[in-house]
Amino acid sequence: MKDKLLKKSKFLLEATLTSYSQIFFTENKILASILIVVSFIEWWTGLSGLIAVLTAIALAQLFDYSEITTEKGLYSFNALLVGLGIGTYFAPGLEVLLLIVAGAAIAFFSAVFFMGIFAKYGIPFLSIPFLVGMWLLLLAFPSFTNVALNMETLYPSNMYFKMGGDVLVSVMEGLSSFFEDTGFDTYFLSLGAIFFQFNILSGVLISLGLLIHSRVNFLLSLVGFFVAYGMYSYLGMYTGSLNYTYYGFNFILSAIAIGGYFLIPSRQSFLLSLLLIPVLVVTTIGSDRLFMYFELSAYSLPFNVIMIGVLYALKIRYDQTKGPILTLVHLKNPETNAYLFDSQPAKKYAAFTVPIRLPFMGKWTVNQAHNGKYTHKDFFRFAWDFIIKDEASSKEFSGEGLLVTDYYCYDKPVVAPALGTVVNVLNTVEDNEIGATNTLQNWGNTVVLQHENYLFSKLSHLKKGSIDVNIGDVVVEGQYIGKCGNSGRSPYPHLHFQLQGTSKIGGATLFWPLSEYLVD
Amino acid sequence: MKDKLLKKSKFLLEATLTSYSQIFFTENKILASILIVVSFIEWWTGLSGLIAVLTAIALAQLFDYSEITTEKGLYSFNALLVGLGIGTYFAPGLEVLLLIVAGAAIAFFSAVFFMGIFAKYGIPFLSIPFLVGMWLLLLAFPSFTNVALNMETLYPSNMYFKMGGDVLVSVMEGLSSFFEDTGFDTYFLSLGAIFFQFNILSGVLISLGLLIHSRVNFLLSLVGFFVAYGMYSYLGMYTGSLNYTYYGFNFILSAIAIGGYFLIPSRQSFLLSLLLIPVLVVTTIGSDRLFMYFELSAYSLPFNVIMIGVLYALKIRYDQTKGPILTLVHLKNPETNAYLFDSQPAKKYAAFTVPIRLPFMGKWTVNQAHNGKYTHKDFFRFAWDFIIKDEASSKEFSGEGLLVTDYYCYDKPVVAPALGTVVNVLNTVEDNEIGATNTLQNWGNTVVLQHENYLFSKLSHLKKGSIDVNIGDVVVEGQYIGKCGNSGRSPYPHLHFQLQGTSKIGGATLFWPLSEYLVD
Amino acid sequence: MKDKLLKKSKFLLEATLTSYSQIFFTENKILASILIVVSFIEWWTGLSGLIAVLTAIALAQLFDYSEITTEKGLYSFNALLVGLGIGTYFAPGLEVLLLIVAGAAIAFFSAVFFMGIFAKYGIPFLSIPFLVGMWLLLLAFPSFTNVALNMETLYPSNMYFKMGGDVLVSVMEGLSSFFEDTGFDTYFLSLGAIFFQFNILSGVLISLGLLIHSRVNFLLSLVGFFVAYGMYSYLGMYTGSLNYTYYGFNFILSAIAIGGYFLIPSRQSFLLSLLLIPVLVVTTIGSDRLFMYFELSAYSLPFNVIMIGVLYALKIRYDQTKGPILTLVHLKNPETNAYLFDSQPAKKYAAFTVPIRLPFMGKWTVNQAHNGKYTHKDFFRFAWDFIIKDEASSKEFSGEGLLVTDYYCYDKPVVAPALGTVVNVLNTVEDNEIGATNTLQNWGNTVVLQHENYLFSKLSHLKKGSIDVNIGDVVVEGQYIGKCGNSGRSPYPHLHFQLQGTSKIGGATLFWPLSEYLVD
Repeated sequence: MKDKLLKKSKFLLEATLTSYSQIFFTENKILASILIVVSFIEWWTGLSGLIAVLTAIALAQLFDYSEITTEKGLYSFNALLVGLGIGTYFAPGLEVLLLIVAGAAIAFFSAVFFMGIFAKYGIPFLSIPFLVGMWLLLLAFPSFTNVALNMETLYPSNMYFKMGGDVLVSVMEGLSSFFEDTGFDTYFLSLGAIFFQFNILSGVLISLGLLIHSRVNFLLSLVGFFVAYGMYSYLGMYTGSLNYTYYGFNFILSAIAIGGYFLIPSRQSFLLSLLLIPVLVVTTIGSDRLFMYFELSAYSLPFNVIMIGVLYALKIRYDQTKGPILTLVHLKNPETNAYLFDSQPAKKYAAFTVPIRLPFMGKWTVNQAHNGKYTHKDFFRFAWDFIIKDEASSKEFSGEGLLVTDYYCYDKPVVAPALGTVVNVLNTVEDNEIGATNTLQNWGNTVVLQHENYLFSKLSHLKKGSIDVNIGDVVVEGQYIGKCGNSGRSPYPHLHFQLQGTSKIGGATLFWPLSEYLVD
Repeated sequence: MKDKLLKKSKFLLEATLTSYSQIFFTENKILASILIVVSFIEWWTGLSGLIAVLTAIALAQLFDYSEITTEKGLYSFNALLVGLGIGTYFAPGLEVLLLIVAGAAIAFFSAVFFMGIFAKYGIPFLSIPFLVGMWLLLLAFPSFTNVALNMETLYPSNMYFKMGGDVLVSVMEGLSSFFEDTGFDTYFLSLGAIFFQFNILSGVLISLGLLIHSRVNFLLSLVGFFVAYGMYSYLGMYTGSLNYTYYGFNFILSAIAIGGYFLIPSRQSFLLSLLLIPVLVVTTIGSDRLFMYFELSAYSLPFNVIMIGVLYALKIRYDQTKGPILTLVHLKNPETNAYLFDSQPAKKYAAFTVPIRLPFMGKWTVNQAHNGKYTHKDFFRFAWDFIIKDEASSKEFSGEGLLVTDYYCYDKPVVAPALGTVVNVLNTVEDNEIGATNTLQNWGNTVVLQHENYLFSKLSHLKKGSIDVNIGDVVVEGQYIGKCGNSGRSPYPHLHFQLQGTSKIGGATLFWPLSEYLVD
Repeated sequence: MKDKLLKKSKFLLEATLTSYSQIFFTENKILASILIVVSFIEWWTGLSGLIAVLTAIALAQLFDYSEITTEKGLYSFNALLVGLGIGTYFAPGLEVLLLIVAGAAIAFFSAVFFMGIFAKYGIPFLSIPFLVGMWLLLLAFPSFTNVALNMETLYPSNMYFKMGGDVLVSVMEGLSSFFEDTGFDTYFLSLGAIFFQFNILSGVLISLGLLIHSRVNFLLSLVGFFVAYGMYSYLGMYTGSLNYTYYGFNFILSAIAIGGYFLIPSRQSFLLSLLLIPVLVVTTIGSDRLFMYFELSAYSLPFNVIMIGVLYALKIRYDQTKGPILTLVHLKNPETNAYLFDSQPAKKYAAFTVPIRLPFMGKWTVNQAHNGKYTHKDFFRFAWDFIIKDEASSKEFSGEGLLVTDYYCYDKPVVAPALGTVVNVLNTVEDNEIGATNTLQNWGNTVVLQHENYLFSKLSHLKKGSIDVNIGDVVVEGQYIGKCGNSGRSPYPHLHFQLQGTSKIGGATLFWPLSEYLVD
C-alpha cells in the first residue's frame, strides 16, 4: 500500500516536472526545477500553472490515457502554459479556479486531439493546444464580470516587493539598468515571456538552465534571437516591439527546434534555422497584425506554423539522406543526438527511417531451416505476424500440432527491433491451449517500445512471465525482450509485430483489427 | 409506373422527414412532424426550409450519392438549417429563392465533403456545413441590394397575428408571462432557436417531441441547460444573453449528444456531459466574442468544436472498455442503446469495437477440414478474400477446377458479420465462367451492411439471385445473407469481405482496388 | 561540362516557363511566353515575379525535391504570384528583395506542405500557397517602415509612358474607351488581374493566349464570367465591383477548371460549371466582406474553396461513370482529354479510376503454367510483390534456387501498367546474390511513372541496366520498361509494384516499409 503510494507520488512528481521542461523539448530535471522557481516569482501565477498541470494529469489518469506519455509531460505542458497565462492575467478567486480547470481541460483535450490527428502526418502538435485554450479564455474574459485583472502582474514592482522584499526589487532594477539598450534586455525578456514572466531575472535564470542542459541550445537561442533582431532593424521595424509584444521567443524556440531538436545538429541544420528567420519575421509581424484585430496576441503561433510546415515538408522529401537530417531518436540533448548519428555504422540508411529490424534473432530462423536452402525469405520482410515453418513439410509444427510446444516458434526469443524505450508491458496473461482464443485480453502479453516521438513498435502474444524488460528501460536493437507465446487472441503460437503512431494500441486507425492477419 | 412513382414519393417523404429529426440525432417520425409544424409558424421561414431540403435531396439524386444516406436525411439536414435561416432573415422574393438554392447547394456539397474527410477520423460532421453556408450568406447579404430583411420575423407579434390571429398572439403572450424569469423562458427560447423560431411555443412543442422520443434526452436537455445557466450566473455573465444570443441550445445539444447518443447512457456519460459544461461555457462566450467582430453569430460552433474534439479524444483511448463507452450501433433512442449494451454477452469486448465476425457459418470451415487437425486458423483472422481449401491437397477445388461448382466455397452460405442494416443490394449480375472476369460490374452481386454511422461491411462476388435480404432490413449477426458465387471481377469463386467508412464503395480510399487480394 | 550546363539551363528555362502557364493548368509554351511579356508591362513587377520563381526553383533543388515536379512549375507558380503581388504593391529596394525571397520561400514550403497533405485526399492545392504568402506579407507591410508603396502601379499612366512611351499610353486609353461599359472591359481587367496587371491590354493578350491554347477554355472563360456578371446585376450588386475588386477571375478560372480541366469536357461538365456560379457568387461576396475586416482582398480564395470542395465531393461518389467524369490523365488541352476519353474502348470502366493493369505481359504468367489448369489467378489481382511460381511444385524456382537465374520471374519483361510519364529512373544498382540484401539502396533499380497529378506507380528491384526508358518519356500501357531483377532490398528475384500519391518514395506514409511484403 505504502509502496503503491510512493510509486504514485514518484509518477506525479515526474509528470509535473516534465510538464515544465517539455516546453524546451527536454525532460531535464535541473531545467525543470529552474522553470518552476521562475514561475513562482509571482505566487498566484505559479500556483495557477501548477493547478493546471495537476488538472491535466488527473484527466489523463481518469480517461486512462498512456501513463508514459503522461509521465513525459506531453499531455500537460500546454495546460501549464494556459494556467500560467490565466494566473498572470486574472486576479486570484474561486471563479478563476473554475476557469483554470476549464482552460486546462481545453488544453488537455486539444492535446489528445491534435496528437492523434497530427500523428497521422508525423508532425508534432507543439503549443497549439495552449493557443486554443488561451485565445478562448481571453476572448471570453470581458463577459466574466466576477473575474478581475491581476493587479500584481500589472504593477510588477509592488509584486516583487511582496515576493522578495527590497532585495528582489533591487535585483530586478539592477538587471534592467545593466542590460539596458544592449539587445540582451529584450533577449532575456523574450525568454522569460515563454513562462509569462516579463522580467529580466526570469530570462537570466532560464538561459542558465538552457546552458546547463545543452550548450548547443543556448547558442542557438542567442543566434536565432539576434539575427531576427537585426532583421527587424533592417526592415525598419521598431525592435522594442519584440520587447513589448514578447514575440522574441518565437525566434528562440524555432532556432532550438530546427537547429538542434527536430534535426540532427549540423552545419545544414544551423543554416536552415538561419534561412527560416526572414520567413519567421514576416509570419510573426503578419500574425501579430491579424490578432490585433481581435485584441489578442498571436503568442507562439508563428513558431507553430513554421515548424509544422517545414518539418512536414522535410519529412516528405524523396531522399532524406541529403541535406538536413531529421532526428529520429531523441536522446537527452542535441549533442548526444549528433554523437549517436555520427557514430552509426549505417548512418545514411539509418537516417532514412528508423531502421526497424525484425524482432527475433537471425539465427532463430536459420535454425529452423532443415534443408539447407535459402528459404526463410519471409522473415526479411516487415510484416504483421510471424511463425516458423518447416520448409520440407510446409508445416509450422511437429507432431499433431495440438500442443503449443509442437509449434516451432513457441518459446523462441523475441528481441527489440530497434533502439527504444519500453513504454508498456503486460506479462500476466495465461497462454491459451491450441484453438482457444482469449478475446477479453486481445493482445495477450505485450511489449510496446517507443523509437521516436511518433514511432512505436508492439510485440504481442508473448509467453506469460517471459518478458524481461520494465517500463522505462532503454533497450538496444537485438536486446532480449521475451519469448514467443500463445496468449491473447491467438489460437496457436505466433508473434504479432506492428509499428504504430502512438503508444496507445488501436489509436492509429479505426480498422486495426483488419491488420491482424498472417502473411504466411 | 404508378408503383415506381409511389416508391419515389415514399422515398422523398422519408428523406424530408428525417432531415428535420436528424437535428436531434434520430429518425423519429413524431418528432419530425412536430418540427415541421414548428418551422411553419412563419410560413416563409417554413417554406424556405422545405425548399432547401428538396434542393439538397435533388442534388444527392442528380449526382448519384447514396440513397440510404439521403433517406436518412444526412445530406439535407444542414441545408434545412440554412434554408430556415435565410427565410428568417430575408423577405420573400425571387432573388431570395436563388439564394436558398445556392445556400442549400453549399450546405449539401459541404456535407459530402466533411462526411468524406471526417469519416477518415471516425468523427461526425454535425452542423458544420450549416455554419459554412449561413456565415457566407450573411457576410454576403449587405451587397445584395435587391434582397430585403424579413420584417415579419423582426416584428413577431404582427406575424403571429397573420399566421394564427388573436389566438396565437395570446398563446405567445401567455407563455411569455407564465415562464417569465423562471429560466424556463430561456430554456424554451433556446430550444426553439435551433429552428430559428425565437418563441416559447416552439420550444414547448420541441421539448414535447423530445420527451416522446426519449425521456433520457429530455432530461439531459434540462440538466445541460440549467447547469450552464447556473455557471453563467456564477461567473457574473448576464444570463439573459443566453436568451438574446440564443446560444443555450449548444448546451442542450451537447448534453444529449454526449449523455445519450454518442456514448452509451450511463453514470459516466452523464458525468462527462456535466464536466464538459465549463469547457463549453468558455468556448461559447469566446466564440461569441470572436464572431461579433464580423457581426455574425457563432451559432452551433461551440457545440461542433467540443463534440468533435472530445469524441475523437475518446475514440483514440487505449482501453475503450473503461470509462465512458462509445455507442457503436445506434438504435432508436438512448434507452434502447443502453439496453442492448447491457444485454450483450461479451459486453466488455464488444465495446472495444463493433465485434465483426467472419461472414460465414462456423461449421462451413470445419466441414472442409478432413484431417482432424486444427488447420483452419486462416478463418479466424479478419481478411479480405476468402476461399475454402482442401487441406490434404492444398487445393481449393475438386476435379479440374474448370467449373464454378468444382470450387469448395461455391454456393456456401454467407452470413452477416454483425448486427446491422442492409444499405445496398445488387443481385442481378451473372456469375462468370472460370477464368473470365466482369470488369464492368467489378464487385458483382454485393450486399453492404451498415453497422454504425461510419462502419460498413461489404460482401461481394455473391451468386446471382441468392441474396435474401432487402435494403432497410435489420440483420443480426450470423443471419443468412446470400451464397458465395463468382460474379463481377472474380475469375474463380471467392468471397470478398471488407470494412469501410462509408456506404459508398470506393469512397474510403483512392487505392481501394489494391486491397482486393487474397491473403491465403 | 558544357553539356551539363546546357542541360541545367534547359531545365531552368522549362521550369520557369511552366511556372507562368501552370496558372492556367497547362504547360503550353506560347501561353507562357505571353504571360511573361504581360508581367513585364511594369518592369519591377515582372522582375519581382521572376526572382520569386527562381527562388522557389532554387529551394526545390537545394532540398532535393522532385525535378519533374519542379520542371512542371508546380513548386514555383505560387511563388510567382506572390512575387508579382510584392512587385505591384512595394517600390523597388533591397529590403523588398528580402521580402520577395521570404515570400517565395513561404509560397514554396506551403506548396510542398499542401501538396503532401492534399494528395492524401486526391485534391489539388491550387493557389492556396499564394494566398498564405500574400496575406502574411500584406498584414506585415505596415510595420516595414523602410518599405514604400510602388507609386508606378498606383499611377499607371506614368508607368505606361515610362515603359512604352506615348504609344503604350494611347493603346491603353484606346482599349479603355473601346470596351467601355460593354462588360468586356471588366472581363479583360479580371483576366489581367490574375497577373496583377490591372489593364485591358494584359487581358486582351492573355485571352489571346487562352484561345491559342484551347478554344474550349476560351469559351468557358467568357461564359463563366458573363453568367456571373448577369447574376451580380440580378441580385442588385454593383457589377463595377468585379472591376474594382478584381474578383472576376474567380469565375473565369472556375469555369475553365470544372468545365474543361478537372472534368472531361462534356455537356455535364459545362452544366456543372454553370450550376456552381451562384454558389461561387455567394462565396465570393461573402469572402470579400470577411477579408475587408482585415483590409485584405480574398483574391482567389473563393475559387480555391469551391474547387476543393466540389472535386472531393465528386471524387467520393459511388459510381464515377455517371454524371460528370473526372479527368484522370491530363493531356495538352481539354479538347484532347475529351478525344482520348471518347476513343477509349472500355470507356466506362476506365473512368472509374485510372485503369492500372499489372506490370507484366499477360503471356508471361500463362507461360509458367505447366499443367493446363487455370492457376495463375494471383496475377489477376493488384498486389505489392510478384513472383512466378510453378504450380505443380508450388516452387518459384527450378533446381536449388541458389542462383537468380533459377527463379522463374528473373529476367522477364516488366511493362508500364498504364499510360504515364517516366518521372524517376535508377538503373545502376548491382543485382544481389540469393539471400543477400542491399539495404543501403533499398528499392534497387526502380522506375516511377506518373499517371495523373496525384497517382504514381513504382516498379522496383529491376535488373541492373535493363531499364529502357528515360525521365520524361511518355509510355503507353504495356510498353516495355525493364526486366525483373534482384537489386536492392531483395533476397531473391521479385517485382515490387505499388501505387502512391507522390513522385517521392516514402512520401505517402510513414509506415511504407510495412507494405513491402509478399502476398503470395
